[in-house]
Amino acid sequence: MSKRIVFGVRPISELVRVRPDDISVVYVADGTRGPEIDAVVQAAKERRVSVEFRPRKLVADLAPGAVHQGIVAIAGRFRYATLEDLLAAAKAAGQPALIVLLDGITDPHNLGAIARSVEVLGAHGVVIPSRGSASVTPGAVKASAGATERVRIAEVPNLLKAIDALREAGVRVLGAGAGDGEQLDQVDFKQPTGLVIGAEGKGMREAVARRCDGLFHIPQRGAVSSLNASVAAAIALYEAARQRGPSP
Amino acid sequence: MSKRIVFGVRPISELVRVRPDDISVVYVADGTRGPEIDAVVQAAKERRVSVEFRPRKLVADLAPGAVHQGIVAIAGRFRYATLEDLLAAAKAAGQPALIVLLDGITDPHNLGAIARSVEVLGAHGVVIPSRGSASVTPGAVKASAGATERVRIAEVPNLLKAIDALREAGVRVLGAGAGDGEQLDQVDFKQPTGLVIGAEGKGMREAVARRCDGLFHIPQRGAVSSLNASVAAAIALYEAARQRGPSP
Repeated sequence: MSKRIVFGVRPISELVRVRPDDISVVYVADGTRGPEIDAVVQAAKERRVSVEFRPRKLVADLAPGAVHQGIVAIAGRFRYATLEDLLAAAKAAGQPALIVLLDGITDPHNLGAIARSVEVLGAHGVVIPSRGSASVTPGAVKASAGATERVRIAEVPNLLKAIDALREAGVRVLGAGAGDGEQLDQVDFKQPTGLVIGAEGKGMREAVARRCDGLFHIPQRGAVSSLNASVAAAIALYEAARQRGPSP
Repeated sequence: MSKRIVFGVRPISELVRVRPDDISVVYVADGTRGPEIDAVVQAAKERRVSVEFRPRKLVADLAPGAVHQGIVAIAGRFRYATLEDLLAAAKAAGQPALIVLLDGITDPHNLGAIARSVEVLGAHGVVIPSRGSASVTPGAVKASAGATERVRIAEVPNLLKAIDALREAGVRVLGAGAGDGEQLDQVDFKQPTGLVIGAEGKGMREAVARRCDGLFHIPQRGAVSSLNASVAAAIALYEAARQRGPSP
């Protein structure tokens, strides 16, 4: 069975809280101190997660080049959700679905940042293609501040088919276009909505854009640059939450 | 005179376009190819910026650990703006001022990401304290996709005094609070506004929060996490732009 490495105080704190049974062991580097580390170690012990102290070099070797903060966990494989899970979550919450689909986002930090915004702004999950996109790597987990442990992330073999499946389930799917389509605040987010976010600069693939029910754009005033993909996703999710008002 | 290193295709492309006279030299790693690099080299030559090809190792040594894309520029010191410059920019544009102030943001990537959103969403500049905060490092320039070359960034010795100075100039300064103060969409952004963004987790310093005219918050639905500082800044700037409508 394959394992994954999770590192950093907040991601491991989340993992201990939400999925303690997934954790094989937490390694803490000798000499790592502080109230945050102590709290994680305490929480792990309360949940019978094994915590072991190891030389700093061993801990660093498990997370090469990463800001591991002296704490690393070995956990089970990431559990991807399915499209149906995402739709069921919206239904269970009594809310019109709000789902983010990513096309060509290859930077795990962007995936992590988007998962974090999805969690905080109350969307129902993220859809990523199984090839050609960032998956839930340790870097993505860290960038999400642990949100990947609680947000539903569905990995699909084919994004076009996922768009079709959402449409059949009554979800309108809109793609982020550079200046094309509806202005974001004109989009009716009271309907079940899927938002496709493409890679910065390149945008969505043409075939994906064509498969969408429409496009939207965030009005931009600057002369040249475009928004970072994770910032664009967060702004769209904020606009949806604003229109929908307080959650029931 | 001190110099700075700028790396990556987009930041250097912006620098060549906006401040060619600041550049001492652009180094391109031998064997670096592609239409984007060619376009930068061409633009540099047109502006009489010297471009030199060097072994890849030399280029990499100038930007240790960074994604330099085979291109590095040596440029003059970053030219910080003043508070007055930011206010003058708003006046020249015939718009109520919209300014972001950062307190305790130490990650240059966050500063860069915020500069990028400020540029794209049409705010008038960023204020950073000269101590204890990220300054415009090569990493910040890269994360901004070159926006730091065009956004006004004022470095001030004392953030509290900067807040007072803005207030005296008729700008209401609001701090981002976790759940405190006005809900973001209730803030009246048609007035001249300064927004103070604190560090993730810690928020603003207490003295800074007290010096503000009020607080605002972005409604959050998630159980635990908070938004990334650069995402929170971008959402607030989007809301301001939404309320203000198309620029004149």
